[in-house]
Amino acid sequence: MGGFGEFGMNSMALRYGDDIIVIDAGMMFPESELLGIDIVTPDFAYLEQHASMVRALILTHGHEDHIGGVPFLLSQQNLPVYGTEFTLALVERRLEEHDLLEQANLNIVKAGDRITLGPFEIEFIHVTHSIVSAVALAITTPLGVIIHTGDFKVDPTPTDNELFDLHTFAAYGKRGVLLLLSDSTNVDRPGYTESERAVRPRLEELFSRCERRLVLSCFSSSIHRLQQILDLADEYGRKVAFLGRSMLNVTEIAHNLGLLSIPDSTLLRPQDIMQSAPSKVAVVVSGTQGEPMSALSRVAVDNHKHLYLERGDTVVLSSRIIPGNEKAIFRMMNHIARRGADLVYGTMKPPVHVSGHASEEELKLILNLVRPKYFIPIHGEYRHLARHASLAQHLRSAGLQDTFVLETGETLEIDHLGARRGEKVAVGRVCIDSGSLDDIVEDVIIRDRRHLSEDGFVLPIIAINKHTGKSEGLPEIVSRGFVAGDGAAILQEARAVVGRTLENSTPEERGDWGVMQEKIRTDLKRFLGKHTQRRPLIMPVILEL
Amino acid sequence: MGGFGEFGMNSMALRYGDDIIVIDAGMMFPESELLGIDIVTPDFAYLEQHASMVRALILTHGHEDHIGGVPFLLSQQNLPVYGTEFTLALVERRLEEHDLLEQANLNIVKAGDRITLGPFEIEFIHVTHSIVSAVALAITTPLGVIIHTGDFKVDPTPTDNELFDLHTFAAYGKRGVLLLLSDSTNVDRPGYTESERAVRPRLEELFSRCERRLVLSCFSSSIHRLQQILDLADEYGRKVAFLGRSMLNVTEIAHNLGLLSIPDSTLLRPQDIMQSAPSKVAVVVSGTQGEPMSALSRVAVDNHKHLYLERGDTVVLSSRIIPGNEKAIFRMMNHIARRGADLVYGTMKPPVHVSGHASEEELKLILNLVRPKYFIPIHGEYRHLARHASLAQHLRSAGLQDTFVLETGETLEIDHLGARRGEKVAVGRVCIDSGSLDDIVEDVIIRDRRHLSEDGFVLPIIAINKHTGKSEGLPEIVSRGFVAGDGAAILQEARAVVGRTLENSTPEERGDWGVMQEKIRTDLKRFLGKHTQRRPLIMPVILEL
Repeated sequence: MGGFGEFGMNSMALRYGDDIIVIDAGMMFPESELLGIDIVTPDFAYLEQHASMVRALILTHGHEDHIGGVPFLLSQQNLPVYGTEFTLALVERRLEEHDLLEQANLNIVKAGDRITLGPFEIEFIHVTHSIVSAVALAITTPLGVIIHTGDFKVDPTPTDNELFDLHTFAAYGKRGVLLLLSDSTNVDRPGYTESERAVRPRLEELFSRCERRLVLSCFSSSIHRLQQILDLADEYGRKVAFLGRSMLNVTEIAHNLGLLSIPDSTLLRPQDIMQSAPSKVAVVVSGTQGEPMSALSRVAVDNHKHLYLERGDTVVLSSRIIPGNEKAIFRMMNHIARRGADLVYGTMKPPVHVSGHASEEELKLILNLVRPKYFIPIHGEYRHLARHASLAQHLRSAGLQDTFVLETGETLEIDHLGARRGEKVAVGRVCIDSGSLDDIVEDVIIRDRRHLSEDGFVLPIIAINKHTGKSEGLPEIVSRGFVAGDGAAILQEARAVVGRTLENSTPEERGDWGVMQEKIRTDLKRFLGKHTQRRPLIMPVILEL
Repeated sequence: MGGFGEFGMNSMALRYGDDIIVIDAGMMFPESELLGIDIVTPDFAYLEQHASMVRALILTHGHEDHIGGVPFLLSQQNLPVYGTEFTLALVERRLEEHDLLEQANLNIVKAGDRITLGPFEIEFIHVTHSIVSAVALAITTPLGVIIHTGDFKVDPTPTDNELFDLHTFAAYGKRGVLLLLSDSTNVDRPGYTESERAVRPRLEELFSRCERRLVLSCFSSSIHRLQQILDLADEYGRKVAFLGRSMLNVTEIAHNLGLLSIPDSTLLRPQDIMQSAPSKVAVVVSGTQGEPMSALSRVAVDNHKHLYLERGDTVVLSSRIIPGNEKAIFRMMNHIARRGADLVYGTMKPPVHVSGHASEEELKLILNLVRPKYFIPIHGEYRHLARHASLAQHLRSAGLQDTFVLETGETLEIDHLGARRGEKVAVGRVCIDSGSLDDIVEDVIIRDRRHLSEDGFVLPIIAINKHTGKSEGLPEIVSRGFVAGDGAAILQEARAVVGRTLENSTPEERGDWGVMQEKIRTDLKRFLGKHTQRRPLIMPVILEL
């Protein structure tokens, strides 16, 4: 239903007779051309059509592209959900935001557990990944065993010493596996992905060398990374403050579950950061992707109430750049550099970030351990899937009968005669407009873009002179779906709203179209919601002169 | 005037008393938010204000970000232009397109030459870069010597054996240099940039291993890369065809100047590609950045008249990804993979591409050779300039007095008392709408976005279902600047034009917003130009469902 031939919103259905299980229900961030939309989830039409057959939702791990669509799916069908304790804790938080937690049927499993759902017996297998408590699935069906790797790398030296469970993969492979589905994200990287431990030398050098404030940003779910930062802070006598809603939430969850150990009296309250000696402070901030309203983006333009940067501070981006976010991230980095802070990021060596996904040699290792009869590469764009399929060709002599590169909506049918492509099923994308994700929890509107005409759309068009940072002329507003009469007056007022948003922004913010789009959208949404009870799609178009 | 704190459109003025020389006049490709605009050049207002003082334009090399703005500058002031033979040959082609060639005053120089322009004596110094015939400048002024590196790397083993002229840098450094301006593009890469020769092993492996058609794409100005491809083709018995206007033009220029040696009877006409044995053909195609109308983008969707891909063909992207182009390039790569072709690109090793810009250790080498009194890092975003400035700090003990991180529009003043920041000068950007750059040479319209209201703008809004590839409902058109009456009828017709463009596109093209934006823009521009004699800004907004 999602994630085949595209990154993000991973979700697939496995059906035997009249029984269906769902593996993962992810979301994705929209491409920039989907301005005005915050997140995208799969359209679960297939599951709605077969509602009486769907037994459960199984989650492999807690990343957004695997669990972000859970509230949307459960609002349609209240399925039992299975996942590890940490994964379900992250799901709980999302369900709570959507008032779905009370009736939810969440079932904690751990690696090594087996559960039976109709004709499926599912074993959860521990794998190493950039998030803790990730599992692969071995699903025994009447036709044979299906192995789904989830996301993984084969980290030989994980920081929590929980090794990748190669033995269980080997045991299934030895007994015979009907079908392997395996993560293709990094199939175009040669060799092995470095261990999570590889970032420690560089982080340690920064802790030992920096004389002023150390500001670090990573994905909030990177518990291993956060643990290394906390350990080093303790060792080098720095207190740690967390900034950003997701960072605060996830660290609290991980700490409560015993997955993140926070040394005694290490924590510093955000409001005390600027009062403490700079050499005694490390601040961990969310917002590695330059998301306009994230904590780090606001710190970068002196717009965060608890932290501003000073000459000699060091800012470390311990994360990768998700394709499509380059411009926003680079803008944020330039703002940081203008404040005289030193920047440390991905292309520098030794690394401050390593990937959580398996490279070519690890993928071959899994293929060789599992030796499946059929193989479907998953999690990647078409070129990744095609390359992963070609990696498996050497297994032809070891029993591999066929590989299938499937795109979202395509199916594979297996019976006693073999495997073949089946008919396509209805799939699609559902766009969700939820306000700024990181810090504003508004009521979330689930919106089907095919019904755009109902609430219409509003395009504020603002010309900003890049060098002066001033807007040129009055903002224009173009709209559809606001009828004559009252509509015209409202739009006239809306222009003034946009004008005020511009006035109340600093020249630096006005030069940063990402921030301005977000601010204009937020202010206009509030204004239009209040005066028209409508929620049009708002897509600010900024012309830089 | 451009290129300080931003990539692209490099251009600066050097003034002593009443004499000004201009170094480079580049262009940049607009950021995606500038939809509807093809290229951006600096606003040369400062030079217009001081027209009587401007003596000449000096070019360091022939890349677009250094010469792309020359026609625009020369259309304002017919300055004498100095550059190497290859650089000027590329300039000539652009001037010809703009009917500016006849009156142009082009002066060929070569490395080692010295020219005198008023108070400036300029020596051209050979440097290695990804384009041939690149030079640095040593400019002797009454106050001291200024060295401008242009773009460079220090390639120890260039393919043409023309070594980087370290000796001249050393000699100036020994005598004393007032000011160094040095390329910061790769300042965040540790170590040394690999030699151009480093791509040969991988290319050779591809030529020796591939059994079917070999399709290679690189920047058309990468003459060293093209020479390696031609040599390997000759060695391995493949004929070479060139596809794409820029590829044909540049190779012809380089061949005529003796910079590209094409072995006898190696060339294959494009129309003969599909008639030749696949194992005997190599096709060199322009369009590494996924530009929607480029030859490679069209080959990728079976839309090129001379080449289509077949299972087992190999496509090599011998180039980097320019930030901002990721999505377009990845889409193109997926189209290629769907046709069963093997893809070889940047992240794989050994490399099929190496950078043309100096990494950290090479930058330190130049700093140490030149030992300037003042230093201005150039060619980079703010974070690159800041990092390059901090790299120079160790030279404080070797006579460095100050470094200046300048952004476009800022100035530095030097006199007998020293160097200090001067007043800002008027700068800006001029947006040029020239139709599709690669293959359609239309009359070029230079458009000042501040006068947008004159011709207005047109926003066609098209909803395309990503999975079915069909458009949902009739395209909408939103506009400003087309008055009532006739205007409404024209816009109604324009909707039909967009509808036809959609109908005449394949589902694959409809799923590729870059291609669709370009096609819709081209068709609408033609239609509106014919019926209204206007050239509104056309920005197709594609909503993917």
